[in-house]
Amino acid sequence: MKFSVVSKDKKTNARVGVLETPNGVLNTPAFLSVATLASIKGLDTFEMRDIGAEIIICNTYHLMLRPGADLIKKIGGLHKFMNWEGALMTDSGGYQAFSLGFGMTDKVGKVVNENRQSKKSTTEKNQSQNTKLAKITEDGVKFNSHIDGSLHNLTPEYSMEIQNKLGADLIYVLDECTSPLADYEYTKQSIARTLRWAKRSQEAHKNNKQTLFGIVQGGVYQGLRKQSAKEISNLGFEGYGIGGSFGGKQMPKIVESVISILPEEKPKHLLGIGEIDDILLAVERGVDMFDCVTPTRYGRHGVVLTISGKLNIFLSKYKSDKSPLDKKCSCLVCQRYTRAYLAHLCRSGEINGLRFLTYHNIFFMIQLFEAIRKSIQENKFEKLKNNIIKKWRK
Amino acid sequence: MKFSVVSKDKKTNARVGVLETPNGVLNTPAFLSVATLASIKGLDTFEMRDIGAEIIICNTYHLMLRPGADLIKKIGGLHKFMNWEGALMTDSGGYQAFSLGFGMTDKVGKVVNENRQSKKSTTEKNQSQNTKLAKITEDGVKFNSHIDGSLHNLTPEYSMEIQNKLGADLIYVLDECTSPLADYEYTKQSIARTLRWAKRSQEAHKNNKQTLFGIVQGGVYQGLRKQSAKEISNLGFEGYGIGGSFGGKQMPKIVESVISILPEEKPKHLLGIGEIDDILLAVERGVDMFDCVTPTRYGRHGVVLTISGKLNIFLSKYKSDKSPLDKKCSCLVCQRYTRAYLAHLCRSGEINGLRFLTYHNIFFMIQLFEAIRKSIQENKFEKLKNNIIKKWRK
Repeated sequence: MKFSVVSKDKKTNARVGVLETPNGVLNTPAFLSVATLASIKGLDTFEMRDIGAEIIICNTYHLMLRPGADLIKKIGGLHKFMNWEGALMTDSGGYQAFSLGFGMTDKVGKVVNENRQSKKSTTEKNQSQNTKLAKITEDGVKFNSHIDGSLHNLTPEYSMEIQNKLGADLIYVLDECTSPLADYEYTKQSIARTLRWAKRSQEAHKNNKQTLFGIVQGGVYQGLRKQSAKEISNLGFEGYGIGGSFGGKQMPKIVESVISILPEEKPKHLLGIGEIDDILLAVERGVDMFDCVTPTRYGRHGVVLTISGKLNIFLSKYKSDKSPLDKKCSCLVCQRYTRAYLAHLCRSGEINGLRFLTYHNIFFMIQLFEAIRKSIQENKFEKLKNNIIKKWRK
Repeated sequence: MKFSVVSKDKKTNARVGVLETPNGVLNTPAFLSVATLASIKGLDTFEMRDIGAEIIICNTYHLMLRPGADLIKKIGGLHKFMNWEGALMTDSGGYQAFSLGFGMTDKVGKVVNENRQSKKSTTEKNQSQNTKLAKITEDGVKFNSHIDGSLHNLTPEYSMEIQNKLGADLIYVLDECTSPLADYEYTKQSIARTLRWAKRSQEAHKNNKQTLFGIVQGGVYQGLRKQSAKEISNLGFEGYGIGGSFGGKQMPKIVESVISILPEEKPKHLLGIGEIDDILLAVERGVDMFDCVTPTRYGRHGVVLTISGKLNIFLSKYKSDKSPLDKKCSCLVCQRYTRAYLAHLCRSGEINGLRFLTYHNIFFMIQLFEAIRKSIQENKFEKLKNNIIKKWRK
């Protein structure tokens, strides 16, 4: 992997970069669409390419359980398995310690299973039992599969082994993502463990075609965030993730202090942040990569992203609206279909409804990031940011 | 509408025709893919066009309830609403008298609601109540909406009014589709009523850009089928549907006797028949048009159509199978994805899984009908038919 910053905003820390991977070049700031189970929900890899997506991220936890890393390796790796000819990233599976562990007991965070059909039963089951499915030890994360209940032990070494088999271009060390409700003492112990796991991951990483990213944790505690950033960057990774919970409004401040410590010349990825205003505030502070399920999840639930804010297709005023989702949008869905038709499809639970909204939303994100990069190169990022945030927050 | 037979098989009654509609030409024998709610489940109209589909059929019953004929007319008609630039047909809504009426009490036939999300609750509700949602009178079909329970009275005149508003190229008279369990006496009364409804439909039909098809009924009773065919053809329609239940193995015999009575120069449509062997036996007897939900429904349930028979993607042997769904198929899905990947998607309940299988299945049907037409023109239909039926029935 090779990363170079090609342009910097004069007023802010926003920057444009180029990240070269063995399977494709990535212009940053970049949005990584989430293909949890090696499939963007409702869009195929060729549509992704047509839309202009340069990178996709898949979830190690989900793929290790189904269909399994060995099977994907046998088919020729994740790129070939899903037929994606672009850059590809996998996470470490550590985030699921959050979702399956305290995510259930503390009732925070997202459900682990993005899948519509099994989500309900899994979530309901977990919530009714109200017990942890995962336990963190020094060794790794012990968890029960949400599919069949089988016991797994995800250690740093095992996460590397799986990710090496999956063969994504960019991969992650195993980390612990602490609860938003975790106290200072627990979080302190946790970042020490995450550091030890980072070292073990580094030592276990065997495939030099894949680039390993480290992750900064530390929850909402500025001091711990800085400590984590310093310690993780001392390990000398080629890229850095900033993960965990940021306590909502404190996110920009935390990102700012972490980024000032991480090596400037390396790409930085803010994990799981996908709301437009948050993205802009993070780009302003120097973040290069984002991933989030919001564009696809919103699409499945009738929420449409536009430059002026969100639009809920289920509002009755759209029932007979002949205009496209977004008049300013040049995506195929906006060229082809009316709000009235899309409202009808979504209301009827038609597969095409969620597919079309998801298509539009991902197109929107890709276009937004293109606009962000352009604005940075033209030193107009702050104007763009203020304009969009004003509309989105009104 | 203009229909002309361009080629006849020498050994059988199979024939190739060209049907011209205001919105597109249709080569027959033709397969009409079903877009119940103005949407093929999982495929968009542009994919349908790429695949080579020339015609789509929508369901009046479903569209009158949601989003309503007035709304569709306001948007510019069904073609514009769903953005389909090809030939389009609507049924009369009469079939739902079957599904909502005795279909529930006799526990036969398909459920009325093709929609995945609401199907379950509707079906379960109906089955548990075990009461008819529809009642047939001389006036028409009184039924309760499966969506909100509201009362509707679908008369021949109202069906015409709705279909005129929807604006499909080919439309249907209102008919009663009798139960497979209906006795001779009931069926006799029913075809007399269907005849009266056909006349009323004819008189009420107001849009001369749309071509009205009559429907032959008569259940499993050869004599009644012949009588219905004679009486309906005396009304002088431009096209004829053959509807209702055929008692399984008796279908070819019934179709044969009906077709010998209907005017030779008019197109004939065998409603709701979609199994490959049945289609071939009906083509052999002179049927020109078919419609069925099987390719899309199979696709959503992991069943793949191939020239050698059905393939169930959930069989464990496909889990690590690197070959395409069908080696002989040139569809995009077979060019792009392995059985292993598709099995994974279907097993995981991914939208793309059912979408890809549906795409392949519709492509298969369109290709099959192209092969059927070619074989008729080359006087090789019987060979094609025997080859396929042998494979499908083994």
